[in-house]
Amino acid sequence: MRTITDPAEFQSLCLDWRAKGVRLGFVPTMGYFHDGHLSLMDAARAETDRLAVSIFVNPTQFGPSEDLAAYPRDMERDTALARERGADVLFTPSPEAMYQGPEVWVDVPEVSRHLCGASRPGHFRGVATVVAKLLLLAMPHLAVFGEKDRQQLAVIRTMARQLFIPTIIKGHSIVREADGLAMSSRNVYLSADERAMAPMIHRGLTALRDDLAAGERDVKTLLARLRERYGRTLPLGEVDYVEIVHPETMTPLSMVTGPAVAAVAVRLGRARLIDNIELTPS
Amino acid sequence: MRTITDPAEFQSLCLDWRAKGVRLGFVPTMGYFHDGHLSLMDAARAETDRLAVSIFVNPTQFGPSEDLAAYPRDMERDTALARERGADVLFTPSPEAMYQGPEVWVDVPEVSRHLCGASRPGHFRGVATVVAKLLLLAMPHLAVFGEKDRQQLAVIRTMARQLFIPTIIKGHSIVREADGLAMSSRNVYLSADERAMAPMIHRGLTALRDDLAAGERDVKTLLARLRERYGRTLPLGEVDYVEIVHPETMTPLSMVTGPAVAAVAVRLGRARLIDNIELTPS
Repeated sequence: MRTITDPAEFQSLCLDWRAKGVRLGFVPTMGYFHDGHLSLMDAARAETDRLAVSIFVNPTQFGPSEDLAAYPRDMERDTALARERGADVLFTPSPEAMYQGPEVWVDVPEVSRHLCGASRPGHFRGVATVVAKLLLLAMPHLAVFGEKDRQQLAVIRTMARQLFIPTIIKGHSIVREADGLAMSSRNVYLSADERAMAPMIHRGLTALRDDLAAGERDVKTLLARLRERYGRTLPLGEVDYVEIVHPETMTPLSMVTGPAVAAVAVRLGRARLIDNIELTPS
Repeated sequence: MRTITDPAEFQSLCLDWRAKGVRLGFVPTMGYFHDGHLSLMDAARAETDRLAVSIFVNPTQFGPSEDLAAYPRDMERDTALARERGADVLFTPSPEAMYQGPEVWVDVPEVSRHLCGASRPGHFRGVATVVAKLLLLAMPHLAVFGEKDRQQLAVIRTMARQLFIPTIIKGHSIVREADGLAMSSRNVYLSADERAMAPMIHRGLTALRDDLAAGERDVKTLLARLRERYGRTLPLGEVDYVEIVHPETMTPLSMVTGPAVAAVAVRLGRARLIDNIELTPS
């Protein structure tokens, strides 16, 4: 496995592969790998000839009061894990290399409006911009993103489709701990008490799905029950949002009459955790 | 020459060429060709194996009170001219094909701030977005743009470089009528009187360059003289802006101490005409 920090060198390698007809799979990440990341690598590897992984803690997607400086990093361990998982190249650029010269932004305003976009102004502009850059550097056949960051996936899918980036954007299902907590690099922020309570985030979503299956279609009612449940089972948590949205545009729905996504963000101690579940009324 | 309206078909053809090692030259236009456009095609053709030309009157770069509906069009003549000039493919998409689904914008705020960007809010966001889409569809080796739209060229160069689009962006010098008027599709808007006066736009810029050569470096002084000259020689015209800016960032300068660009926009009857000249203090 080669490790490359220079964007031009990374692009040259990837374009060379493309010119030779090699199908490249790509997994862009912020590092500090857990099984979720590794499953994305496996998914990309399974459908392509070469695997590129990037690690870049992208400053432009963090707000001024967010955890950019504290975001967990372990490049040595990540490098070993990427190699073990069969990556052919690991791309680890510096912020200066990714952002040089006058500003250029890629913005996906409609899909970014709600959920995390409302709580984190500018976050998805940073995500869309850096992922556009990374995709245009790697120009992969396939790029894989985790469905935990469901709105991020919708933003990236929209961006890639509207800009005609010739890459298949694939979502990969959420990898969870045995007790149901969605894996996240930010789970390391949790105290023991918070960690014990954290699986209730997912439990609330499955209960909501059960309510839907039992016939409740009204979003206000479904979300009021979810908030009530979180109040009981997650006393240390503070709900940032609970929403039921369209699976592609991420706009809030009032009734669940077709495929939808229930998405939540909860502050638990130092961590802000997100999770979601697909809903399909029978 | 093939004419293609479907973006997917155009992209597939161009990616196929790229995979075969064919060097593609690309000239994106809004059509209604004059010799300026044709010289861009010649410049692209000279350095590549295949030539793609696009005609797309991009709605998102026109303001609500601008000339989108009136913008001159002649697809039949343009098609014949592109064929004569050796184009291998002419891409003529519909607005619906270029803009479908939730909005995505590419913005280059710093380079877009002054000159035409100040007079035409949103104009360069529309330009940067559509050119990003066109470049990603064609993925050419080389794309050629006219230097008459000097700020547009700077916006596109910045956009392509910052997004790592693997295309050489080449500027081509302004093609002028015998009397010095910069060729523009919008020159058809001019009445006979206005047309007779229009060469004074360029004449003012060469006089400014002469003032610089004679030792005047102060931008305020140079621009005051230019305004005064336009007042005398262009009585039918209304100056939108006269500026001397940095050649890459397009930010106004106060002294000319290195390479710079003098740029003007003048309203003359129904037409808004732009022109510019490179300055290099000796």
